[in-house]
Amino acid sequence: MPTSKENAQAPTAELTSRTHGVFAIAPTPFLPDGALDEASVSMMCDFYAEAGVDGMTVLGIMGEANKLLPEEALTLVRGVIARFSGRPVVVGVSSPNLRALERLAGEAMAAGAAGVMFTPPSTLRTDDQIVGYARTVSETLGPDVPFVLQDHPTATGLVMSPIVIRRIVEECPSCVMLKHEDWPGLDKITTIRAWQNAGEMRRTAILCGNGALFLDFEMARGADGAMTGYAFPEMLVDVVRNYRNGNREAAQDIYDTHLPLLRYEQQPVVGLAVRKHVLARRGAIAHETLRAPAPALSPETLADIDYLLARLARHDMRAG
Amino acid sequence: MPTSKENAQAPTAELTSRTHGVFAIAPTPFLPDGALDEASVSMMCDFYAEAGVDGMTVLGIMGEANKLLPEEALTLVRGVIARFSGRPVVVGVSSPNLRALERLAGEAMAAGAAGVMFTPPSTLRTDDQIVGYARTVSETLGPDVPFVLQDHPTATGLVMSPIVIRRIVEECPSCVMLKHEDWPGLDKITTIRAWQNAGEMRRTAILCGNGALFLDFEMARGADGAMTGYAFPEMLVDVVRNYRNGNREAAQDIYDTHLPLLRYEQQPVVGLAVRKHVLARRGAIAHETLRAPAPALSPETLADIDYLLARLARHDMRAG
Amino acid sequence: MPTSKENAQAPTAELTSRTHGVFAIAPTPFLPDGALDEASVSMMCDFYAEAGVDGMTVLGIMGEANKLLPEEALTLVRGVIARFSGRPVVVGVSSPNLRALERLAGEAMAAGAAGVMFTPPSTLRTDDQIVGYARTVSETLGPDVPFVLQDHPTATGLVMSPIVIRRIVEECPSCVMLKHEDWPGLDKITTIRAWQNAGEMRRTAILCGNGALFLDFEMARGADGAMTGYAFPEMLVDVVRNYRNGNREAAQDIYDTHLPLLRYEQQPVVGLAVRKHVLARRGAIAHETLRAPAPALSPETLADIDYLLARLARHDMRAG
Amino acid sequence: MPTSKENAQAPTAELTSRTHGVFAIAPTPFLPDGALDEASVSMMCDFYAEAGVDGMTVLGIMGEANKLLPEEALTLVRGVIARFSGRPVVVGVSSPNLRALERLAGEAMAAGAAGVMFTPPSTLRTDDQIVGYARTVSETLGPDVPFVLQDHPTATGLVMSPIVIRRIVEECPSCVMLKHEDWPGLDKITTIRAWQNAGEMRRTAILCGNGALFLDFEMARGADGAMTGYAFPEMLVDVVRNYRNGNREAAQDIYDTHLPLLRYEQQPVVGLAVRKHVLARRGAIAHETLRAPAPALSPETLADIDYLLARLARHDMRAG
Repeated sequence: MPTSKENAQAPTAELTSRTHGVFAIAPTPFLPDGALDEASVSMMCDFYAEAGVDGMTVLGIMGEANKLLPEEALTLVRGVIARFSGRPVVVGVSSPNLRALERLAGEAMAAGAAGVMFTPPSTLRTDDQIVGYARTVSETLGPDVPFVLQDHPTATGLVMSPIVIRRIVEECPSCVMLKHEDWPGLDKITTIRAWQNAGEMRRTAILCGNGALFLDFEMARGADGAMTGYAFPEMLVDVVRNYRNGNREAAQDIYDTHLPLLRYEQQPVVGLAVRKHVLARRGAIAHETLRAPAPALSPETLADIDYLLARLARHDMRAG
Repeated sequence: MPTSKENAQAPTAELTSRTHGVFAIAPTPFLPDGALDEASVSMMCDFYAEAGVDGMTVLGIMGEANKLLPEEALTLVRGVIARFSGRPVVVGVSSPNLRALERLAGEAMAAGAAGVMFTPPSTLRTDDQIVGYARTVSETLGPDVPFVLQDHPTATGLVMSPIVIRRIVEECPSCVMLKHEDWPGLDKITTIRAWQNAGEMRRTAILCGNGALFLDFEMARGADGAMTGYAFPEMLVDVVRNYRNGNREAAQDIYDTHLPLLRYEQQPVVGLAVRKHVLARRGAIAHETLRAPAPALSPETLADIDYLLARLARHDMRAG
Repeated sequence: MPTSKENAQAPTAELTSRTHGVFAIAPTPFLPDGALDEASVSMMCDFYAEAGVDGMTVLGIMGEANKLLPEEALTLVRGVIARFSGRPVVVGVSSPNLRALERLAGEAMAAGAAGVMFTPPSTLRTDDQIVGYARTVSETLGPDVPFVLQDHPTATGLVMSPIVIRRIVEECPSCVMLKHEDWPGLDKITTIRAWQNAGEMRRTAILCGNGALFLDFEMARGADGAMTGYAFPEMLVDVVRNYRNGNREAAQDIYDTHLPLLRYEQQPVVGLAVRKHVLARRGAIAHETLRAPAPALSPETLADIDYLLARLARHDMRAG
Repeated sequence: MPTSKENAQAPTAELTSRTHGVFAIAPTPFLPDGALDEASVSMMCDFYAEAGVDGMTVLGIMGEANKLLPEEALTLVRGVIARFSGRPVVVGVSSPNLRALERLAGEAMAAGAAGVMFTPPSTLRTDDQIVGYARTVSETLGPDVPFVLQDHPTATGLVMSPIVIRRIVEECPSCVMLKHEDWPGLDKITTIRAWQNAGEMRRTAILCGNGALFLDFEMARGADGAMTGYAFPEMLVDVVRNYRNGNREAAQDIYDTHLPLLRYEQQPVVGLAVRKHVLARRGAIAHETLRAPAPALSPETLADIDYLLARLARHDMRAG
């Protein structure tokens, strides 16, 4: 029985251009021997649900999607959707192989996913190539599959100017959300939002990634929330809710407290290992295992994490 | 009962460090609607067998491997091995996904492949990263799977110095062949061969790709043959045989006659479409179809090919 | 008093959108100790003049521009313009440093250059970034400096779609020529020429580079000539003249004879060393020296060149 | 008369393998019309001296080195050395042009620089290429020019493994310092320090860049200090001094307070404009002007900076 402002906007399994809040980018849990850890899938869903996130995104870079066999990916998708019922699950389907992308998207939607997410491959160069690729994927998926366009140049080297994003949104009616992770990207949000507010561009949701390294200002620029994998999703929820409710100072105070750890998690390559370690310590997953090839955490890195968590715990008891 | 010099080196389905001759890089035939064209698989095998090639390599870049679903890839592999019996078939297994690589390699070897081929991914940078990756793959494949190390910087951006190749060969006993397609790469062949001849590096076979754009001098530098997809494999066979028999001038005369077309086929992106067009005209496959996304041949490009074939036909009646 | 068809189109020192023919990309001659070889500058100009080229381009990649001090670059420019009088000299001014670009362009024009050439830097990504950069340079140069836009993705990684080139031509009135070296690039020429012939895009000259590896078909697609550094510029002159006079078969026969050597020269990295070696043997420059850091030609490479020249000499006595 | 531990290690104009502390990466001040602002050079030196930094580094990426003419670069170098007397000044000399690098280094040392800094160019790939380049530069500079090896893959794409850095240090006796800015890079510091402490690698100083985004843990891993351009160099001095004196908690408290702004400054592309804006507000330079081409700060970005400074001022009155 919703009574508060937030609860009035109860989560549904839909993904639309009005979606907002926090979508957790979820890792893929493995057993110590590298097999898929199906038991942890349920634990993890409950962890994220208790943290108050509005949705989940699986099979992103953080989900080690490119280390899974097709049937493992599908098992994960089905497990998450079953457990996380009532909230939207987005499935990352990026692939250099368009047929594989199409198959996974079809399977995911059949399993109850709210939508899919992809990023154009790093081999594309010109504006027309990028727009053409997005249109091809959109047509391949069909009009009934809502999709998230991921703009992630630090991972792909592919740069989409605001006008390219606008063209994609105009040409692909099923594009309902932008996952923004350009860096720097704040003025990009401002530009797109200005076009949308002026009626020059169809509205889309904008959720931000990039490890939340600029979530505070992304919200200030008009983003609708976060879609990222920080190991304290509660913080993301707090920050986004406070921002949306007009409590900027409260949001920033919480954010700043977490920034030292958040920044540490956002390192390329080793960041995912740090996150799985923290998530395992927090009980979100049973094991911190990454599938090979993967970096090992050095003793010094483990000591760094201990230190960061100890300091965080002074302000946020969830880090204790 | 072999009687001629060539027949004395009768083809077998083995892949060893002494393998030589011509391995055709085979396209994957599709029907006009984009479905796998299984009938053409047999036609194509017969075409290459009649051309006198010593082996075939499937699922390379030219084979549009990254547009196939896993079961399609396996169907192709089985079809080729069944029809091309008695001669070695190498299966390209390169993938950013190590599990997918391992599975395809296992299936290919179970189906009777002579070996597999892979290239380290473009994301690697340092010498140690490249050697480490090759060792990981080698250990994953196991000691009984002979493999070809593909050195293809123009496609991947990954540069392997001669010393890196040497380290990989030393650390991976099942590496039996180098597919050389560095550009420039002639001195690289010379360096590796010198080490091998001096006993400082274990011998491997060296077959050359890069569209045969330097096959003449690659043979002069000590390569054992060609592994590439030029649409007149008979020419490759003639050149390699003549070189190995000491008839350099004859080899060069044949080569030079084909160089205008060969160079035209070796264009990035559009080259594969040109090759499939020529192969379809020659009856090697039923349709020139590429799977989307793929470039279409412009009327001007088709006219270029007509012109090149007409000129070639003056010297080589197979182009008629 | 011009009497033949070619002479009627007498060379001038102007660079316009109607310029055609062959511009030699000239090397920078060095003494064995690495100092600028000013005596060879005159030899080289005479060599190119005797070869019948219509113009010269200095300080390109082949000119080792990025190994020269500013005053050395200016000395070379002045020396070439003084000796090559009556024919246009284009000066490459590409630089990541816009101030340095501006200074060199000013000095070159003051010295009598016909125009300058630049390519946008490899760090640019989106269409707007590339067009914006060209516009900035054009405005910096001012309306009285005709410029050549160099489209050279194999060297820079920067891809300009035809529409980007069209936008640059529209926004920069002083852009009079495209140096085309995309690969593949034949359909790009066809597209641009079609726009220009239909009056949808302002006319520019199109001269082709890329080592002349596709000069035959580039002429067939409507290019106006060549701007490249092959060590037998006489061949380029013959091919372009025959094409422009409608003698396609004669042009192709000459071209094909040179293709084996031309292809050898067009190798990345080592190609320039090969060219300087051949030019020195032909007496165009006194020494084959490259400035450090530079690759040395191996004994095997020297033998390759000997072999190619000996074969070429059977058909073209200039290679003797 | 130094009495405390820190003062006992009084700054000198030398650069050695024992150098430690904070070197400010200095911007190049410009007048609003883009001309070099020589008056601000003195202001800036005084600002950094008062902030307590141990040295300065000019002509880095932050110094817009690639927008200066050679004589402007030299003017800046001389101005800084004259004003900042008694403390070491390092001059960035990275260039794709080895002759230009050599000239600038010679001029800088003649002007009294303590040493020079360079990073290998992004075109290099293999371990041997990188080590060979560093050796060539080292030999070109000669044994009397101490140099800093800059390891900055996020800017260059060039990845140096620890073993490559070790080889460079072994082969180049005049390499006295590593400017560390790999990301992630903490374990790299640990590896190199372990080798040095074990006597397996010659000692070098290690100062860290990367906008100080990991300075806290870099110190914990054994770095000797910072070499970066954060607009509150006092904070860098406080953090490094506290770390070196064993007051980790104090160091971390100060660091965390600045992290929100520090992170904002560390954005690619726009970060330098943010820094110059803050430095101008603080009176370190007269104008925030960047030379074209450069990004403009949007009104929203200016508001972000206001907000960050206002929050910082609650804890650090220098931000008031």
